[in-house]
Amino acid sequence: MPHIPQETEVPRQRPNEIPHNEKLLSLKYESLDYDNSENQLFLEEERRINHAAFRTVEIKRWVICAMIGILTGLVACFIDIVVENLAGLKYRVVKDNIDKFTAKGGLSFSLLLWATLNASVVMVGSLIVAFIEPVAAGSGIPQIKCYLNGVKIPHVVRLKGLCYKCPSVPYQAVPTGGLASSMSCPLPSLLFQIFEYFRRDTEKRDFVSAGAAAGVSAAFGAPVGGVLFSLEEGASFWNQFLTWRIFFASMISTFTLNSVLSVYHGNAWDLSSPGLINFGRFDSEKMGYTIQEIPIFIFMGVVGGILGALFNALNYWLTMFRIRYIHRPCLQVVEAMLVAAVTATVGFVMIYCSRDCQPIQGSSVAYPLQVGNDTEQHSGPCWLFCADGEYNSMATAFFNTPEKSVVNLFHDPPGSYNPMTLGMFTLMYFFLACWTYGLTVSAGVFIPSLLIGAAWGRLFGISLAYLTKGSIWADPGKYALMGAAAQLGGIVRMTLSLTVIMMEATGNVTYGFPIMLVLMTAKIVGDYFVEGLYDMHIQLQSVPFLHWEAPVTSHSLTAREVMSTPVTCLRRIERVGTVVDILSDTSSNHNGFPVVESNPDATQVAGLRGLILRSQLIVLLKHKVFVERTNLNLVQRRLKLKDFRDAYPRFPPIQSIHVSQDERECMIDLSEFMNPSPYTVPQEASLPRVFKLFRALGLRHLVVVDNRNEVVGMVTRKDLARYRLGKEGLEELSLAQT
Amino acid sequence: MPHIPQETEVPRQRPNEIPHNEKLLSLKYESLDYDNSENQLFLEEERRINHAAFRTVEIKRWVICAMIGILTGLVACFIDIVVENLAGLKYRVVKDNIDKFTAKGGLSFSLLLWATLNASVVMVGSLIVAFIEPVAAGSGIPQIKCYLNGVKIPHVVRLKGLCYKCPSVPYQAVPTGGLASSMSCPLPSLLFQIFEYFRRDTEKRDFVSAGAAAGVSAAFGAPVGGVLFSLEEGASFWNQFLTWRIFFASMISTFTLNSVLSVYHGNAWDLSSPGLINFGRFDSEKMGYTIQEIPIFIFMGVVGGILGALFNALNYWLTMFRIRYIHRPCLQVVEAMLVAAVTATVGFVMIYCSRDCQPIQGSSVAYPLQVGNDTEQHSGPCWLFCADGEYNSMATAFFNTPEKSVVNLFHDPPGSYNPMTLGMFTLMYFFLACWTYGLTVSAGVFIPSLLIGAAWGRLFGISLAYLTKGSIWADPGKYALMGAAAQLGGIVRMTLSLTVIMMEATGNVTYGFPIMLVLMTAKIVGDYFVEGLYDMHIQLQSVPFLHWEAPVTSHSLTAREVMSTPVTCLRRIERVGTVVDILSDTSSNHNGFPVVESNPDATQVAGLRGLILRSQLIVLLKHKVFVERTNLNLVQRRLKLKDFRDAYPRFPPIQSIHVSQDERECMIDLSEFMNPSPYTVPQEASLPRVFKLFRALGLRHLVVVDNRNEVVGMVTRKDLARYRLGKEGLEELSLAQT
Repeated sequence: MPHIPQETEVPRQRPNEIPHNEKLLSLKYESLDYDNSENQLFLEEERRINHAAFRTVEIKRWVICAMIGILTGLVACFIDIVVENLAGLKYRVVKDNIDKFTAKGGLSFSLLLWATLNASVVMVGSLIVAFIEPVAAGSGIPQIKCYLNGVKIPHVVRLKGLCYKCPSVPYQAVPTGGLASSMSCPLPSLLFQIFEYFRRDTEKRDFVSAGAAAGVSAAFGAPVGGVLFSLEEGASFWNQFLTWRIFFASMISTFTLNSVLSVYHGNAWDLSSPGLINFGRFDSEKMGYTIQEIPIFIFMGVVGGILGALFNALNYWLTMFRIRYIHRPCLQVVEAMLVAAVTATVGFVMIYCSRDCQPIQGSSVAYPLQVGNDTEQHSGPCWLFCADGEYNSMATAFFNTPEKSVVNLFHDPPGSYNPMTLGMFTLMYFFLACWTYGLTVSAGVFIPSLLIGAAWGRLFGISLAYLTKGSIWADPGKYALMGAAAQLGGIVRMTLSLTVIMMEATGNVTYGFPIMLVLMTAKIVGDYFVEGLYDMHIQLQSVPFLHWEAPVTSHSLTAREVMSTPVTCLRRIERVGTVVDILSDTSSNHNGFPVVESNPDATQVAGLRGLILRSQLIVLLKHKVFVERTNLNLVQRRLKLKDFRDAYPRFPPIQSIHVSQDERECMIDLSEFMNPSPYTVPQEASLPRVFKLFRALGLRHLVVVDNRNEVVGMVTRKDLARYRLGKEGLEELSLAQT
Repeated sequence: MPHIPQETEVPRQRPNEIPHNEKLLSLKYESLDYDNSENQLFLEEERRINHAAFRTVEIKRWVICAMIGILTGLVACFIDIVVENLAGLKYRVVKDNIDKFTAKGGLSFSLLLWATLNASVVMVGSLIVAFIEPVAAGSGIPQIKCYLNGVKIPHVVRLKGLCYKCPSVPYQAVPTGGLASSMSCPLPSLLFQIFEYFRRDTEKRDFVSAGAAAGVSAAFGAPVGGVLFSLEEGASFWNQFLTWRIFFASMISTFTLNSVLSVYHGNAWDLSSPGLINFGRFDSEKMGYTIQEIPIFIFMGVVGGILGALFNALNYWLTMFRIRYIHRPCLQVVEAMLVAAVTATVGFVMIYCSRDCQPIQGSSVAYPLQVGNDTEQHSGPCWLFCADGEYNSMATAFFNTPEKSVVNLFHDPPGSYNPMTLGMFTLMYFFLACWTYGLTVSAGVFIPSLLIGAAWGRLFGISLAYLTKGSIWADPGKYALMGAAAQLGGIVRMTLSLTVIMMEATGNVTYGFPIMLVLMTAKIVGDYFVEGLYDMHIQLQSVPFLHWEAPVTSHSLTAREVMSTPVTCLRRIERVGTVVDILSDTSSNHNGFPVVESNPDATQVAGLRGLILRSQLIVLLKHKVFVERTNLNLVQRRLKLKDFRDAYPRFPPIQSIHVSQDERECMIDLSEFMNPSPYTVPQEASLPRVFKLFRALGLRHLVVVDNRNEVVGMVTRKDLARYRLGKEGLEELSLAQT
């Protein structure tokens, strides 16, 4: 009866090469199952549990969410404190040495020192990522998106990932994402050690959603934004109770961060630090907006969309280059160090060339850089630097943590920045950030985008104030905010959640409407040219990602054309040898097998009775749940749901299970382990219909049946993700083993 | 072949009596179909449409959402302006007359005047509701909840409802909800006249979601809260694009309101009025909170939960009384007038008895009431009233619009209110509001709840300040806010959306965490005693409302036990007479019929081929789409999708379609009109599994099949809504025709 699926006969050749074609879909990614396998064991357990026990389970869920919130908050605190101290340390080392060496050997020596320092710090982080935990690379958001979408990205929710990611983040001196979301997602795995009832994909995915929300919440002090991020990126089925739990985790997370940081900063109990990245309070009394400004905001959205598309296009070419030529870990480390050194050099040259000295005012400048003035009294090279009581604003922008620079751009009073400085800074930072994204370091794109946008937004505001002869409404800080939103929106193309995140991070509800307008415009304009950065990277990695809806023009396809066929079926009472052979067959890449009636005289197709997962079969074989063929009336060993849970999520490979020749002739009864009511679709169902069912219920396998309920095929995630709307209409991606 | 469903044989007796048992489920409500009938016509149309045309459709959706936003904003403006002017008028009339009559004939005359005035104003609104448009009663939120849940509440989304509701709202002098959400939902119907492509339940429900969100957004200046309200109450399947459109409508709506009201109030372009109900800005610099206060907030949540449960329990008994004894329209009008007169009397007596005179300060008091002091120089009855330069705070609380009173309670400086006044006011207003909810007037529970909560919250804050000897953190305004949240949360049991609404209405993100805590606590405590007010009323009306999940202990039920059986099936090529008979059979209450193979020698059950809706059959009969039995090879008349759309949503009854005796013998081929791939479940599927499929896809009919794909039953909304988790475990509601 078993059929070997035809499309999987491609041998596993060239295993190390990553597909360098975005029109491929990789078969290496497994899917998550958001649908419970409702077999007899499961139902028996659920029926045994009474109402009070269900309440206990529900309370446990809340406890886990609270723990996720607390742990996320603590991790975020740790990152914040380490990053802040490292930035201070770096500033002091560089400043001291510049002072010393400029006196002795000239500027070139200082430059060398700075570049080396930068490169060596990055090297440590890069080594960890390149050699130990590749999943810690980047901002983690694409990985989280994929996981919430239902794709199992190896290691993404493992505690190990967190352990490596945590220490590697602070090394990223250049554009530290600071996004704690990717860090918090592995936390549920830790909690699973304690609460074994929750060891299944459904629950795990819910908790990962909570972790992602808690991470965003802690990063920006945006609990509602966190929930919306989690929903926008992940959830397909909106469940009120789940949403409340996610919201609870978000709130706890920002509250924990707030409490701990308040204590750390010495003003205990006043809760003044809601998030890692705080945009500072925009006082809406002073800084409202008027209807006349709305076209200006929309224009900024257009600019953001175009710049974002440019950023993404450049990064696309760069990533293609990296995939082709820089896929060896040591090369990746070298590239990361190169970027760090170049960043330092560019920074140094720009500080050197810019003569943008500003009087020191207020407390917004933590690390003013005024070099050399103590030693050489404004002679020699020091005419480039600043006098006492002044600071070099370009140097400040380079030496601050980028988060602080963003806040400065938002809130420094008009006249704090020289337009030339801002222009140069935008230009340089744009290319450096573009080069940095995709390096093998744990650095994201969020903060750099905000910084670029804030810089050109402020420049725009200054120009506007100049053109309108200093109208009161042309506050450069406001335009810096809009520019930041436009640039970030143009790159990542988020709207609802980003609007709320910006609203919460600025503590200002009034700017909601213009921010939404800017983000919408940036998204529409950006989408016209090229995809969002995260989607682009997901696609470049050939992940079978399911979008929200099937391509609009896909009504012409039906399940019959989409499904994999023929599909390997098992009989309800099956020979152990057959099961082992099917599982050992590397060309059979499905993880679920329809179970059909074991009528011996059945024709080739037979009525569907259930669905059993590869992982379940493995557990059955491991526990030797079978009887001899001659003793079919003997009762086979009973398993408990616990046996399956204990093996979750890393089921042993079939090779590790020894089945003797005698045992191969035994029979295995799948009836009580298979899911007796798998979801099915008829062959005539259109692709959008199949898609909707699949997506709404978070399925992993969908059996296609004919009019007599006989199995004719199987639809999995890859079969649906293959169809995509390209420039010239519907296109079909090829499948690849790599 | 047609079977008469057994459970529908209850004759249509006692049609006027409303079931006065909450353990009933009414059969009179039809369901909405969120799933498109994917028949040949539909697929042909979809396949004809190319990518560009789909983009046009998408743009049209955005345009409709913008229009919904604009219209909602304008309706809200209209309400705001009328209510404000009426409140001013009422104040002036009462004040002038009290001055006049107190001088002449004593206070009893003034009282009579006020009571009569109040009663007659309410009478007008009540007459409209009781005799013309009953659906305009109440706040409209339960109706919207039901509609978004998928229950077709007659008239709720009809333009007529809006036309009657608009003028009736301003008459509610007592506790005007001001919630524009229920008003905006009929707007999509208007737009359907223009955009015929969208004439189907799916699209309509999406636009109603947008309308509901826009309404909340305009009411509270809370665009994000509006979106969350719409999602929390309605959506089951989260779709990113839909959410963005809803958000867009929300933003447009609050922006429109803001612009128009800014112009109306004379400060054009400054956008200072984001919502109808503005809680005033809480300055978070001055009014933070500390960790020590959190237990206090939780305690307030407990109080709110208990008071809310008490409110709901009282209202439950009252509603049962009303259902039994006050179901004639004229009685309803009398009751409404009685409530108005009693409200006036209570108010008058309390103003008379309270001696709470406060110095007039600031601009927060729009209608200070200082009665009689001009004429009688503080002698006689005037010792009860106030001196020059002072106002009676009780009178202010009664004469202001409740929205303004809430704002005053939040923002008046400490010492503005006498604790006695607040206590008395809370007590009286609690019972009056409870009596008012459920009257045949368009009045909601939102603002009265906030007002009650703000009053006791402020009282609590004053006591706390007294106990702690005036700590700086014991600001009564902050506690008024928390009290308002606790009371409202205790009554309506919303959490996420309400948190965000409160955050946006106060323009303050800092209070998010305590508000969430208060709302969560209030919900948990309240749920311990009794359901939320809206859910209670939905249940009292026997609406088949589907909650988020199936009852937790329902795994023991399977589709076989839940489904209706036997089910009326049609053959693929069916005799017209049979169709007419089935449709005319009043005992057959299903609106969808499985289509089975028309094999003449089939046994009683036969393989499922498709599903056809009652409405589709009606259109087919109306257009005489059939051929003579003797000429089966003739091609039957082709219909277009437009023919079905033109009949939407009010399909004619079967009685209005004349079918001659000859025509009865003709045959009708359903193949191209039926949905060939209806969703099915096997008999063994558990109730939670069936529920999940049904809820996630927004189905109306779900066919239950056996192993051979033969129809054995049908699951509809009523079959699922019947099972509920009661105090003693799973309970099953009975079905009733009324």
